Amino acid sequence: MYYEVVKQCAQSLRNLEAWLDKAEQHAAARKFDMSVLLNGRLAPDQKPLIYQVQSACDYVKAAAAWLSGQTPPKHADSEQTLPELRARIQKTIAYVDTVAESQYAGAAQRRVSFSWAPGKTMAGDDYLVQMTIPNTYFHLTMAYAILRHNGVDVGKMDFLGPINLVEC
Amino acid sequence: MYYEVVKQCAQSLRNLEAWLDKAEQHAAARKFDMSVLLNGRLAPDQKPLIYQVQSACDYVKAAAAWLSGQTPPKHADSEQTLPELRARIQKTIAYVDTVAESQYAGAAQRRVSFSWAPGKTMAGDDYLVQMTIPNTYFHLTMAYAILRHNGVDVGKMDFLGPINLVEC
Repeated sequence: MYYEVVKQCAQSLRNLEAWLDKAEQHAAARKFDMSVLLNGRLAPDQKPLIYQVQSACDYVKAAAAWLSGQTPPKHADSEQTLPELRARIQKTIAYVDTVAESQYAGAAQRRVSFSWAPGKTMAGDDYLVQMTIPNTYFHLTMAYAILRHNGVDVGKMDFLGPINLVEC
Repeated sequence: MYYEVVKQCAQSLRNLEAWLDKAEQHAAARKFDMSVLLNGRLAPDQKPLIYQVQSACDYVKAAAAWLSGQTPPKHADSEQTLPELRARIQKTIAYVDTVAESQYAGAAQRRVSFSWAPGKTMAGDDYLVQMTIPNTYFHLTMAYAILRHNGVDVGKMDFLGPINLVEC
C-alpha cells in the first residue's frame, strides 16, 4: 500500500503538469505573461504557485525516499519559469519511478526525522497518513486553486486524472 | 492501512471543524455575517464552502462504508448554517467511528460502483488511492483555501492537526 500511495501521488504530479499546460494556454489566449500565474497566490501572506508545485514535489520525493530506507536527493528550489517547473516535476517522478515496490518492505517501521523537530521522530505509517498524504494533496490542491481562481479551465476530472474503472 | 487512512481522513474533518471555529471568530471580529464565508467560493463557477464541507464528509463516509462492506448512510445536503455544518461533520465522524479495524479486512478486493459510471466498478485498493484520498483532501483544501483567501487566520499546522512525533 505504501508503494500504491506514493505511485498515486506521482500520478497526481503528472495531473499537475496537465493543469499547467492548460494554464499556459489560458495565458496565451488572454495575452498575459505566464509568470503572473506562476507567482499567483490566494492571499498576500501565502506562498505562490511556484512554491506549491515545488512543495508537492518534495513531499512525494521524500515519501519515496524515507519509506524505502533512502535519503531524498536534493532538488534546489530555483525554478522561475514553466519549463523549469515541468523539469522539477519530471525529475521528481523519475526519482519515484526508481523505487521498486519491494523496497517499501518494512516501511511502517521505518523512522523519519525532520530538521524542524530535533530529537523527535515519526514512524513510517504515521508519516504516510499524517504527512505525505495531507501535505502532497494540500499543495496540489492549492496549485489547482490558484489556477482555478485565475480563470484557468481546470475541473475535478483534471484533478483526479486517470481512474481505474473496469467492467462489472 | 485502510483503517489508518480513513481514520486520518476523519481526523482531518476534526481539523476542518477547528478552521470553521477560526472562521466564525474572524466573522465576529470583522462584524460580517458568517454566511458570507459559508457561501464563499474561489471562482464564480465553483461550488461554495458549504458544498466543499459536505463533499469532504461524503468521501470519508463512503470510504468507511464501502471498504468495510456496508452501504453508506444517506446524509441530505441541506446544511445552510455553521451549526448545521458542524453537525454534518460530527455525524460523519461518528459513523466512521462505528467501523472497527477488523471490518476493513479484504477491503482491497471489495468492488465499489458509482451512479455516474453504470456498468463499471472499481477495486477497493484503487478506490482508496484514486478516489477517497484525492477527493477528501481536494475538498478539505478547497474549504481551507476559501477561508484563507478571505482572510481567516488558518495555517499549515491547522491543516495538518495533531502529528504523532515521538522522542528518538
